[in-house]
Amino acid sequence: MSRRVREGARAARVERVRARMGELGVDALLLSLGADLPWLTGYEAMPLERLTMLVLPSDARPTLVVPRLEAPRVEHDEELFALLPWDETDDPVRLVADLVGSRASLSVSDRTWATFVLDLQDSLPAARFSVASRVTAPLRAVKDDEEVAALRRAAAAADRVATQLVSGDIALVGRTEADVSRDIGRRLVAEGHQRVNFAIVGSGPNSASPHHGAGGRVIAAGEPVVCDFGGTFDSYCSDITRTVFTGAPPPEYRDLYSVLEAAQAAAVDAATVGTPCEDVDAVARRLIDDGGYGPHFIHRTGHGIGLEEHEDPYLVGGNCEPLAPGHAFSVEPGIYLEGRWGARLEDIVVATAAGPEAINGVDHGLAVVEA
Amino acid sequence: MSRRVREGARAARVERVRARMGELGVDALLLSLGADLPWLTGYEAMPLERLTMLVLPSDARPTLVVPRLEAPRVEHDEELFALLPWDETDDPVRLVADLVGSRASLSVSDRTWATFVLDLQDSLPAARFSVASRVTAPLRAVKDDEEVAALRRAAAAADRVATQLVSGDIALVGRTEADVSRDIGRRLVAEGHQRVNFAIVGSGPNSASPHHGAGGRVIAAGEPVVCDFGGTFDSYCSDITRTVFTGAPPPEYRDLYSVLEAAQAAAVDAATVGTPCEDVDAVARRLIDDGGYGPHFIHRTGHGIGLEEHEDPYLVGGNCEPLAPGHAFSVEPGIYLEGRWGARLEDIVVATAAGPEAINGVDHGLAVVEA
Repeated sequence: MSRRVREGARAARVERVRARMGELGVDALLLSLGADLPWLTGYEAMPLERLTMLVLPSDARPTLVVPRLEAPRVEHDEELFALLPWDETDDPVRLVADLVGSRASLSVSDRTWATFVLDLQDSLPAARFSVASRVTAPLRAVKDDEEVAALRRAAAAADRVATQLVSGDIALVGRTEADVSRDIGRRLVAEGHQRVNFAIVGSGPNSASPHHGAGGRVIAAGEPVVCDFGGTFDSYCSDITRTVFTGAPPPEYRDLYSVLEAAQAAAVDAATVGTPCEDVDAVARRLIDDGGYGPHFIHRTGHGIGLEEHEDPYLVGGNCEPLAPGHAFSVEPGIYLEGRWGARLEDIVVATAAGPEAINGVDHGLAVVEA
Repeated sequence: MSRRVREGARAARVERVRARMGELGVDALLLSLGADLPWLTGYEAMPLERLTMLVLPSDARPTLVVPRLEAPRVEHDEELFALLPWDETDDPVRLVADLVGSRASLSVSDRTWATFVLDLQDSLPAARFSVASRVTAPLRAVKDDEEVAALRRAAAAADRVATQLVSGDIALVGRTEADVSRDIGRRLVAEGHQRVNFAIVGSGPNSASPHHGAGGRVIAAGEPVVCDFGGTFDSYCSDITRTVFTGAPPPEYRDLYSVLEAAQAAAVDAATVGTPCEDVDAVARRLIDDGGYGPHFIHRTGHGIGLEEHEDPYLVGGNCEPLAPGHAFSVEPGIYLEGRWGARLEDIVVATAAGPEAINGVDHGLAVVEA
């Protein structure tokens, strides 16, 4: 995409954001950490103690308040926003408050640090604060064609690594989880990711810990290894999980995995436009219940994905929002027998008018690698 | 350190935190993202949309509210805190509010996401919120012997990479900044870091951008390259900057660098126990002013370092706190001629009763590598 096209897309996003601010009565958006800022401006704030914040009033031109030493990083279009660099002895919260003025309803990036939220509240005692996601999340959740194409490229790169995993090209037995995790990370970069976001490797009993931190455990023969990994590829995230078994899996593990595989496939099929998010979760949960593993599926079925690893829509009980064309999300049920073993299977899926489309393509069967 | 010793150290920290909460009238500490939580418990919250929060009342046992799927990650000592896992359809903010009860003065981790701060304020309308750093920062800023030893190990690992850089072992000319940045990152890991936090590579005119994001520019002969990098090594951070020139530097660059080198050395020497932080900054600034580059030193002289890359004490105008034994911080003046070139020189320094001690040991002279 040319710079001009990109800037046009961003200007159109700003207009949609302003329209929604009008509907919700939000007077100014205050954007700091997280993906709202790069989604609108192409610039990502550094996650440090110096405040970066875009002040986007409903009725005036936006201004990016940025540390002077980071101002040279900002490639910016004067028409989209003004730049206000601050010096080390300035008070950036004061600068933001001055730009806000008497506007009363303010929506601040969900990931803004508490220290800045509390300082802003002190500086603007009459203002009411809410989170920016109430403005931006429904807009960001619907991906346009360019964004779906970017998610596909990220998924394809993750698929290449997952294929290396399930085909046995990534050695497992005799290596530590942490070593395999680093290896997967290197391969994500080699396949085109700019950044590795995570590479969970849970082996043996650790496969029952959904967010296990890959550690010093040496992977042995005859056990499952859950690998859940993803990175950022041209700003968009990948996320895939495959479970492999080192050697011939015993019947009881095969049974567990077949229940999981059926549940994941059914949940993907259920993710049609118009279906409430929680219904997709319920489909996976029912099949796992019916298979006898209900209490061992201890997390939601999925999360939206885009510029952020986790974003709207969430496939979880209580979320009755219907799926819309362009929604992109993970479908990743898991079964975890504490102290024993576990399994998870995950693809990224895009809801389209023609039905749900999984954009990961690696085989779903239990991968058996040589011990 | 054995687990028992580590847990003893953590229990002692909790006692010091409670004493300071008493002095400041803080009724409960609410710890989420950032280093306060691992400093006290050994557990680091995942930076995701599911809330992890330790509720540490001044008058009761602490409780860690944690997503159920992450509970197996928590290695915890029942004597230090209780564990309260929450399910996907629970409201974790409600659980925290219930644990807080009628306590009124609450200090929340500086990096807690805005979304949780605002929800907590809604759930606890009578409470007053402040940042946890007012309790923890002065305590964390003073490193004990174990912590200084950990910082030394991290610094030594970063030094090995910096030595490879200044000796010309890391090829520069003909490579992109991004490629060199990835190379430095790989070397930080090879030298023992678990995580790369950043690897700034700014070449030619980009060397004038202090926080330049390493990009597609190909490094040429006859130009400066500012490399500022660090990672996490057994939980503690490294951070070092060296500037190299690809070929023979012209006299005007030699002049700029010699002013910088003298300013950095003088600032290190000035960092004695009892000296106000801003005075160390002023020493570097005066020498750079005297050298004729005053307006081109556009950031503070340094930041504290420990479990976080940037923490108290900050060496910046306006911070009149005196240095104390065990304070660890960067001393990193820079000179940046916009559009032309720049330079920065950085070591980590520990304030001790015997004087300031730089824990990085790589030569300070302008490194000239073959073009």
